[in-house]
Amino acid sequence: MNTYNKNERNTVKRVPKRGHYDKKTVYEVLDAGFVCQVAFVIDGQPFIIPTIYGRSGDTLYLHGSVKSRMMTSLEEGIPVCINVTFTDGIVLARSAFHHSLNYRSVTVFGKAKPISTEQKNVAFKVISDQILKGRWEEARQPTQKEMDVTSVLAVEIEDAAAKIRTGPPADDKADLDLPIWGGVVPMTTVYGTPIPDDHNPADRSLPDSVKHII
Amino acid sequence: MNTYNKNERNTVKRVPKRGHYDKKTVYEVLDAGFVCQVAFVIDGQPFIIPTIYGRSGDTLYLHGSVKSRMMTSLEEGIPVCINVTFTDGIVLARSAFHHSLNYRSVTVFGKAKPISTEQKNVAFKVISDQILKGRWEEARQPTQKEMDVTSVLAVEIEDAAAKIRTGPPADDKADLDLPIWGGVVPMTTVYGTPIPDDHNPADRSLPDSVKHII
Repeated sequence: MNTYNKNERNTVKRVPKRGHYDKKTVYEVLDAGFVCQVAFVIDGQPFIIPTIYGRSGDTLYLHGSVKSRMMTSLEEGIPVCINVTFTDGIVLARSAFHHSLNYRSVTVFGKAKPISTEQKNVAFKVISDQILKGRWEEARQPTQKEMDVTSVLAVEIEDAAAKIRTGPPADDKADLDLPIWGGVVPMTTVYGTPIPDDHNPADRSLPDSVKHII
Repeated sequence: MNTYNKNERNTVKRVPKRGHYDKKTVYEVLDAGFVCQVAFVIDGQPFIIPTIYGRSGDTLYLHGSVKSRMMTSLEEGIPVCINVTFTDGIVLARSAFHHSLNYRSVTVFGKAKPISTEQKNVAFKVISDQILKGRWEEARQPTQKEMDVTSVLAVEIEDAAAKIRTGPPADDKADLDLPIWGGVVPMTTVYGTPIPDDHNPADRSLPDSVKHII
């Protein structure tokens, strides 16, 4: 199965040509980030919590305090919807109407499940690698006490879809001769100069994990 | 009222000191962006849709096709939860456990309402200004037909909270002497070089709206 099934909840209805259901595309978007928005329902009220995730195959790992509302609610196996969105540019058309954004977005539907202690160790590294590859090995490993106060849940992807817009504006033909600039202002997220805290000796160099991204 | 009431749904429970309920702080975070995640519930299933917004006072304007699932669902006045999150940095502690992110996040609770035709015109400009100030005036204004196929909803903020983390890692004292780099790798979103489309004469200069942000 290289493609998610299209059904009522994951089918992209507005501008269907922007919808993608193949796992390769969905994974690429998910793997480009590490912060997702998790939506769930308590007593009919929707909640969104932004949180860190790590992907392994068709599993998204979420972690948090064992006391957090999100973790305690999700571990009951309620339906969750997870979204990851990148804004890649402002699309300036001649008409106000055709202004748009370039973006990559993935929406995932599934349910969260608690995982075994063995899986938990794997999941921690998956999450850590998603944010900063190699940092897990550099850092002081978690103690049993630290592990015990952190809950990790696995969301198996049941359905997913990516929605992607790229390229120039799509103005009406009649507008193309208007004396108005049309095009795209790209947007991208960059890493700045690392800021050491006050507990590093002056001659301590940056860790390899950071050197690889800056 | 310069502050949102704290109640069961908007109170920041994990790391309460990161929670802010004053409107000034909430507005600052909302005004720093223009893409939000909107969560709503249909038949018990949570959905998240990333979409553009504009803020005016305690109102968030959302727009979309009159046919979109989000707009048709929301205009029934169902509860919505809206989140805007910026990731400002990766926080590298000595211990894996104390790794974190710096971020600014706002979560809003409310309900969407349809608006009058007069308000709709105002709302379009509010949304456009949120993305790119001044662009509204540069662009070809919407026709009645374009207005008619676009729905605009107003979400009055009932409750909101900001959650913000800044600054260096918070390592355990016992870890501070470990030979591990600790600090922050800042992250920021930047605009790239504008890409004109194929319908601009060679001597057309960038519009003022774009010049102001790049």
